[in-house]
Amino acid sequence: MVDVRELTVGVLGGTGAQGKGLAIRWAQAGLRVLIGSRSADRAADVAEEIATTSGGSVLGRSNVDCAAEADVVLAALPWEAHADTLRELRSELAGKIVVDCVNPLGFDAKGPYALPVEEGSAAQQAEALLPDSRVTAAFHHVSAVTLADTDVSHVDLDVLVLGDDREATDLVRSLADVIPGVRGIYGGRLRNAHQVEALTANVIAINRRYKAHAGIRVTDV
Amino acid sequence: MVDVRELTVGVLGGTGAQGKGLAIRWAQAGLRVLIGSRSADRAADVAEEIATTSGGSVLGRSNVDCAAEADVVLAALPWEAHADTLRELRSELAGKIVVDCVNPLGFDAKGPYALPVEEGSAAQQAEALLPDSRVTAAFHHVSAVTLADTDVSHVDLDVLVLGDDREATDLVRSLADVIPGVRGIYGGRLRNAHQVEALTANVIAINRRYKAHAGIRVTDV
Repeated sequence: MVDVRELTVGVLGGTGAQGKGLAIRWAQAGLRVLIGSRSADRAADVAEEIATTSGGSVLGRSNVDCAAEADVVLAALPWEAHADTLRELRSELAGKIVVDCVNPLGFDAKGPYALPVEEGSAAQQAEALLPDSRVTAAFHHVSAVTLADTDVSHVDLDVLVLGDDREATDLVRSLADVIPGVRGIYGGRLRNAHQVEALTANVIAINRRYKAHAGIRVTDV
Repeated sequence: MVDVRELTVGVLGGTGAQGKGLAIRWAQAGLRVLIGSRSADRAADVAEEIATTSGGSVLGRSNVDCAAEADVVLAALPWEAHADTLRELRSELAGKIVVDCVNPLGFDAKGPYALPVEEGSAAQQAEALLPDSRVTAAFHHVSAVTLADTDVSHVDLDVLVLGDDREATDLVRSLADVIPGVRGIYGGRLRNAHQVEALTANVIAINRRYKAHAGIRVTDV
């Protein structure tokens, strides 16, 4: 098994809160991190900020260069940009493990709710658009605020890792395990990704009711 | 706030594993429990068994009488019987808090998966069929095996309670809280019930991979 600390992880949409938070933690753990963004300049700015916060190795790239250079790639894209961005990166992402953490959610006066996705889930949409990649789904319920707060030395969270490729889900579980406090738990096949993505609406409802940064733990595992 | 221990809780489909497990715990906590089944005789047999296991007050009823006599009613029905059974109980359940714990799941060679539900979820189907009731959703991820094992004195589980009626969800949270170790946590509006029901497919996948009786805990709450 490869030591994930020796990998270069690319974060597409790495200038957003979820991607940034994970990038900080991975850089702290010793991984080389590439922040991808539509704008390479914007990516470079955020990468510099994350490098300072984490004390790790973080560089900015265009999304295309991020996908091409990285060993494993997190898709932390806004849902609105998910399909179009991945479609353009098919060849750069070929043969690579892709981790989709996107939560297709809507918000109205009653709060958050899950958006319908034609393919079933964001992860299945990624799988359809990236037939040459090894698509997994994970890191849906992480609190960006908690991850970005480097005073939090123990993140109280299990990360459900979904996918049909055992080697790929094992590697992604290791990407969770390098964050202190976090455990990567196998969470089922990719066809069961929708409810994990959609559960983020419930986590947000919990956060609002309890003024919390809630996470999920799996008991008896 | 009413003390839930003084209530009579009806369990429709109480002869199934999920209903039986909860009935045992509620009877142990001092609630009066009515086991409902299509067959009153079958309900009486199972009620006697649960009364012995729990040392509590448990009686068997037809589903109709169970719905009519209980103060609060758990729908623990097989998904196949969910719509037809609730449709027939509309008048008996009028004005009452109904707790739906049904998980519409399918199984094939690749394991469990979530079934599509026209109304969005079992809970929303219940709401559509029972317009005069106060419908909530909860107790989806309980391990029937763990609940039925009275040697387990501390059940390591949070129960997500969903609904649009604060008084109703608070009461159902109390129904979770009476089980030692269990916490009832508000989990969002009823429109976000689908993913909580469907997540049971993931819990089953986790159980199979890790040979566990997995439950969910919510952190930072």
